[in-house]
Order: sequence, then C-alpha cells, then structure tokens
Amino acid sequence: MKWKTEVSSSGENAVVRGEPLEKVMEMQFADAIWLVLKGEKPSNKESEIFNTVLSSSIDHGVGNPSTVSSRTVQSGGNGMNTSVAAGIMALGDSHGGAVEEAMKILQSEKSPENIVEDYLRRGERLPGLGHKVYSEEDPRAERILEKAEELGLAGRSVEKMLSIRRELARQKVELVLNVDGAIAAVMSDLNWSHQLGKGFFIIARTPGLVAHVHEETGEKPFRRQEGEYIDRE
Amino acid sequence: MKWKTEVSSSGENAVVRGEPLEKVMEMQFADAIWLVLKGEKPSNKESEIFNTVLSSSIDHGVGNPSTVSSRTVQSGGNGMNTSVAAGIMALGDSHGGAVEEAMKILQSEKSPENIVEDYLRRGERLPGLGHKVYSEEDPRAERILEKAEELGLAGRSVEKMLSIRRELARQKVELVLNVDGAIAAVMSDLNWSHQLGKGFFIIARTPGLVAHVHEETGEKPFRRQEGEYIDRE
Amino acid sequence: MKWKTEVSSSGENAVVRGEPLEKVMEMQFADAIWLVLKGEKPSNKESEIFNTVLSSSIDHGVGNPSTVSSRTVQSGGNGMNTSVAAGIMALGDSHGGAVEEAMKILQSEKSPENIVEDYLRRGERLPGLGHKVYSEEDPRAERILEKAEELGLAGRSVEKMLSIRRELARQKVELVLNVDGAIAAVMSDLNWSHQLGKGFFIIARTPGLVAHVHEETGEKPFRRQEGEYIDRE
Amino acid sequence: MKWKTEVSSSGENAVVRGEPLEKVMEMQFADAIWLVLKGEKPSNKESEIFNTVLSSSIDHGVGNPSTVSSRTVQSGGNGMNTSVAAGIMALGDSHGGAVEEAMKILQSEKSPENIVEDYLRRGERLPGLGHKVYSEEDPRAERILEKAEELGLAGRSVEKMLSIRRELARQKVELVLNVDGAIAAVMSDLNWSHQLGKGFFIIARTPGLVAHVHEETGEKPFRRQEGEYIDRE
Repeated sequence: MKWKTEVSSSGENAVVRGEPLEKVMEMQFADAIWLVLKGEKPSNKESEIFNTVLSSSIDHGVGNPSTVSSRTVQSGGNGMNTSVAAGIMALGDSHGGAVEEAMKILQSEKSPENIVEDYLRRGERLPGLGHKVYSEEDPRAERILEKAEELGLAGRSVEKMLSIRRELARQKVELVLNVDGAIAAVMSDLNWSHQLGKGFFIIARTPGLVAHVHEETGEKPFRRQEGEYIDRE
Repeated sequence: MKWKTEVSSSGENAVVRGEPLEKVMEMQFADAIWLVLKGEKPSNKESEIFNTVLSSSIDHGVGNPSTVSSRTVQSGGNGMNTSVAAGIMALGDSHGGAVEEAMKILQSEKSPENIVEDYLRRGERLPGLGHKVYSEEDPRAERILEKAEELGLAGRSVEKMLSIRRELARQKVELVLNVDGAIAAVMSDLNWSHQLGKGFFIIARTPGLVAHVHEETGEKPFRRQEGEYIDRE
Repeated sequence: MKWKTEVSSSGENAVVRGEPLEKVMEMQFADAIWLVLKGEKPSNKESEIFNTVLSSSIDHGVGNPSTVSSRTVQSGGNGMNTSVAAGIMALGDSHGGAVEEAMKILQSEKSPENIVEDYLRRGERLPGLGHKVYSEEDPRAERILEKAEELGLAGRSVEKMLSIRRELARQKVELVLNVDGAIAAVMSDLNWSHQLGKGFFIIARTPGLVAHVHEETGEKPFRRQEGEYIDRE
Repeated sequence: MKWKTEVSSSGENAVVRGEPLEKVMEMQFADAIWLVLKGEKPSNKESEIFNTVLSSSIDHGVGNPSTVSSRTVQSGGNGMNTSVAAGIMALGDSHGGAVEEAMKILQSEKSPENIVEDYLRRGERLPGLGHKVYSEEDPRAERILEKAEELGLAGRSVEKMLSIRRELARQKVELVLNVDGAIAAVMSDLNWSHQLGKGFFIIARTPGLVAHVHEETGEKPFRRQEGEYIDRE
C-alpha cells in the first residue's frame, strides 16, 4: 500500500501544500502552521489573530491532567518524546475539548435559542461560557474579541456566540464568555473546521508540555503519590 | 504531594515565566515558545532565526515513521489527541535525533578532531553530515547558516560544526552539511541546551502531524498493510 | 489530592481486591486477571473459558494497525514500553471494537428484531457477524460456543447473539457468526460489563505486541514507507 | 514495503509461532504468552513458575507513576486504549526497570565481585537488592525462589544473584533480595533474554491498569492536582 497525501513531500524538491520548503522557511512559524493545516497562506490580519490565539493557550499551570501526565511519565524514566506524548494524550473530551465543542455548535445550523434549550434539557454545560474565577468578564476572552473586531475579522460566529450567551441569560443564568468561547468563535469566523479545534489546541500547548518535561528532568525520578486502599467489604 | 513549577500559573493572574498571560497573548507564537522554554524573550534577530528553524521542520512527506504512526493510529478509530501523540512517540533516537546528538557534541569540550576520531572508531555516522539526495550542498542548511551570518548570530558552534565537517573530509570522506547539522549549530550558538533538541523538533513537527491526522480522518478506517508470515522451521 | 482505590494496595500487606499478594502469586495468571478486573475469583469452568478467550486473541498477523504502529514506533528508535503503548493506542473504535459493541447490544434491553432494524436503517454492519474468509462458519467462533455449551456457561447472551444472526438472515442476509461475536456473547453470559470489552482485548493482545516489538528490535531502524504527494491544483 | 514476521499469521490457517490458532485457543493464557514470546511451549514446570511471576506483578497500589498516568489520562476524557497506553508509557527506566537491569548483569560474563565493585564505584544501587519495608526478607522473593527450587528450575542465575547479594554484604551492606531480583534470576534461568525483561512486566501489569482505568471511569472527569508557581526572580 502506498500512502498518498496533499500535505507535503520530502526530498530534493520538498514542498508543503505546494509551497517549496525553501519558501516555507521564510515564513513565520504561525503562518507555516496555518499553511500546513489549511492549504493556503493567511492574510496579515489572519496571521495576527492566529498568533494571539496560539500564544494564549501555550501553558496554564502545573496541576491539569496533561501536565501531570507528561511529568509523571518522565518521572518513570522516559525521554522527551514519550513524555510529551503522554500529555497530549490527556487532552481528551474533558480537557481542551470546549473549543472543539463550541466550534461544532457555532458551525451547526441550529439557532442560539435551540442550542441553549438542548443543553438545558440534557442538563449539560454550554461550552465557552462560565469561569471558575471570573464572574464579570474573562480578560483573555475580551482581548481576543476586541482584536478580532479591530482587525475586521469578527463575523457571524462571534455574533452567534454572544447570542448564545444572551439566550442562556434569558433562559437560565448569566455567565461570562470565557477564552474557549472566544477562540471558538473567532476560529469559526476564520473558516476553520471544528475538526481541527482540538488540533490547534494541541499545537498551542505542546511547547508548554516540552517546558514541563524539561523541568521535570531535573527532579528525582519516580514520583509516587499518596494513595489509599479501600476494602470493599 | 504538591507540584512546583517555574513554567506558568493558572487562574486570575496567570503568568508564563513571570510574564502576564495577557502580555503573552500579544507575542508572536514563536516568541512565546522561546519564552516558555527559555524563561526570557528573544531579541528580534533571535526571533527571526527561530521562526526559520521551526518552519523548516514543519512537515516532510508521508512515509516517515512519525507520520505513518499517527495515521495508522487514527485509522484504528481514534481521535486527534491519541493519533498525534502516536506520531510524537515515534520521534525516538533514530528519528529527529540527529539535531539533539549534534547539539550534544557541539556543546561538549571535545575537539573536532577527537569527535571525528571517536565516531570513526565506533563505526558510527556523524550527526548533521551527509544527505541521501544532496551531494554538493543542502540548500536548507545553507539558507539557515546564511541567515545566521546575516543576523550576526553565528558563533563558535557554527564554526565547530564546519570544522567537524572539514576534519571528517581530512580523515575519511567529504559530506554535505545537512539541515540537522545547521539547526544544531545555530541553536547551540543561541544557547539552547541539547536537552531541548528533541523538544523543539517535536514542537515544529506537531502541526504537520495534525494535518496528516486530519487528512487521514477522511479516509476509510483500518489501514491494513501487506504482511508475510515466515515459518522458522 | 489522595487517590483512592478498591483495586490493590502496595507495601508490607499488599493485596489485590482484598486477596493477599502472596495468595495471588499462587493463582494462574488468567485467574489473577479475572480477580483484578471483577473483584472475585473465577470458578474452574469460568477459568477454562476465560483462558480460551484470551488465548484466541493473542496475536493475528503483522499487517493490522496495532502491530504496524508498535513496530513503526520501535523503528523510530524507542524502547519496549513506548512501542507497545503505540500499538495499544491503535486499538480504537475500528480495531478490536466489535467485541465491545456486540457486548453493548447484547446487554441492552433491545430485542434482536429491533437491533437488526436499527443497524439496517443506519446502514451499518452488525458487530460479531460476517467474515472476510469464512462464509460457512468461523471455526474459532464455533469452538468458543461449543466449549461454553460443554461447560454449561452459555446463557441468554449466546442465545440472543444467535437470534440476531437469524434475524439478520430473515431481514437481509445470512452471515457467519465470527470470533468477536462469540467472545462478546460468552463474556456477557459470564457477567462481564461491556465497559471492559476493549480492556480484555488489550490484555489479550499485549503479549503479541511485545513479541512484534522484540522482533522489530532486530531490524534496521527507521522504516520508511512509500508515499506519494498529490498536488491539489 | 512488505512486513515479514515469524510471530503469527492471520486468515484461514492462522498460526502463532507455527501453532494453529485453534490449538493456541486450547492453551492456558500464560502458556500462550510463553509461546508467542519464545517460539516454543513451556513445560509444566516452566508454566507453573511463569504463572507465579506474572501474577506477582499484576498490580501494586494506586500511587505509582504508571497508575497515576493511566487514571489521569482517563480523567481528561479518554477511552480504555489511550488511558492504558499512558500507563504503559510510564514504565520507563525507573519504573519496572530493575528486572531488566538485573537480568542484564546476570546474563553478562562479569563476576559478582566485579559487578558489585562497578556499581559501588559509580555510586549506583544494585538492581534486585533492598526494600523500603522489608529488612529481613521479602516474602514474595522468597516464595519465587522456593518454588523455583521445588520445581528444579533454579540454576546458575539464581546462584549468581545470591552471590551478588553476599558480595555486596562483604563489600558494603547487607540488603534483602527483593521480588525484582528473584524474578530476574528465575527468568534468566528459564533462558529469557533480558531484552524481554520490561516486556513481561508490561504484560503482567496491563490487567492492573485496565482495572484502574475502569474504576476511574466512574469518577468525575478532569482531576486537577495542587500546584504552586515559583517565580524565579
């Protein structure tokens, strides 16, 4: 079986999405990411907001599941690749999944009213709304929306996300728009498929995981945690 | 057990390496990567060469082990996080390892002469030298060195890498400086620890793996490859 | 945070599910697996059929996604743990998933008639039925059912699986009961939760993956596969 | 590229190491593991001690790195395959590595005296000796050696392991023979390559990891751990 791809080629005339690798080397890394994922180059404005979105998610403390996984696997006596991979594996449906889920509802045909009704009926939390710490506004979310507005990139998905928020306030409770919701809205207005929602979160967070694994490499191996055995009988 | 870190914090006053997250959001993604890994911001010149290094490694065809692993794991019926992780796992000692190995010898106290002697005695290939396709020069390696020179960032590691090449030519065979060798030399001159050599290759390649997994998601599941059973008797 | 578990403890009076580790050491491995997963010991008859089920899935050629993933990751220059893990990761919804899916429908309240209707309406294949090679009968499936009958362990799930097969024949097409269907039926009659369906397949296949990784360790590193770049334009 | 293997084949006349799959199904699981790894069937005595070795390592509390990794990755919202794989990944050089390392020195040509000297000179701990809890004797180690003696399977590796212990007592300190040392000695006397030392530990522990992931599936997702950010300045 021969593998076929539209992504890139290797060897003498190597290309990425049709662009010669020599030219890709002249691109900003964020622009090259856009190219390899979407098959086209971003405009200057798209590049600016994309850098903001990626940088906003680069790392977020040591206690979340992906960081704990990466550092724990390193402490078992493993190298960089295995340890970073363990952190990325932790990024399942409950961890970094809100962006993808919010993109999915924003890109659906459903109205804000119906979306809110569906979630409330199922007793689930709406993705992109609510924050443990911020009750008035999430400054990172505000900054992303602000920048999208300034650059003229905010469109119907930003509008729809804000409508969902208002609709939830009307039907049940007022919640802050959080950074996941802002990213989901802006990325949807930039025509990114929700299928790549988890993908760009992985790209954004990988440098943070590398930093944590590097730090953990200087610690003693074999981190043992406290555990308690409960006899069922 | 409480985890401790100098990398970042989460919550209301979240920081990355002491820098408020709101300010990190204003940084180019490549600069934020530099910050999270090194604990300081790059200069404009450092930023420029770092973007080149990252973009140069973003993807390189479909047939290498990391891409095959990612796509194969996706075809078993898995999501983005698990599939990308499988590709990163493949980046072991034999895949993307030349940069780290070359950084290690460049950052050692050993002279080019002794380094070449050691490798020849052990019958091993020197990292960073030789290319399957290019016999005269590797254009990507040349471009990276050229840019490092233009920016005034080339230093003793670039010089040492070139000495190793000359020394190998003197002792045994003339080989081209390849892109791994150029990256290793430049990153060493930028004071990056060889312990992060594999790390930034992982960061650079993750977007390519995301693109391949996304493409594979559109293919039929369960890629079966041709195999042959050999009876030992 | 302290972890709590009913599975096992370590240290001086270590137990597995309440059983002292010294006594677990006197158990057959398959019985110890049953104990750790179900919290009780199997009867002799349960032990016999469980050994058959596990041994039947221990390995199955070199070309499937899990084996290819494990061997490819090893060829990137990785050790046993990382390489075996990559193979297990490939065991997603499309690979070894039929047992779990079949257990789910067998353990549901739905009638065979409704189950078949639902699958045909959605245009999906019924799990546990059909085989690429066998059109009359799958000898492994027959042997598992036969043994379950002999041991008096076949019950309503085996009956339901056979009813689903007859129902599909009535509504559309006659297909052979395959080994996944036989395992799913027998494990359901042994009161195993479908949530463990993928779990015991993983347990059964891990030794095969270890054998493949060991074999691959003797091969040249960096397996490159043939790939073709398709220019989209 | 066609994959070649001596391990197994699939399809109508599927075999494992030359043995028809129908016959493998009649084997105890531990015997089938022996077959797939070594290419031959165990004797009754070999089977008995192998079951003891595997069962002794099936699980060992909740706080070690592999269990923490598996449960943490599950809590990020992942399925059985990804979560179990994360636990296996944690089984690096510092976790379950003592068996492999002890097998390596037992299978080397070096004398007990030289082995102990080498470790003491490098300031490293000898694998297979010492225990946090037991100072007189490790009952599991004793049981394994006892059983090997009873079955007539203890040979020169058991003898060498005990000599290493005496030699360490003579040169520096008296330490108990632990379970890793006993397993390493017995497996070496059973002619297992040290290259498979980590492999059979992975096989033995996978059921425990499946049990932990299953238990964790019933817990709330996204386990956050306590972390503290340290400002470097």
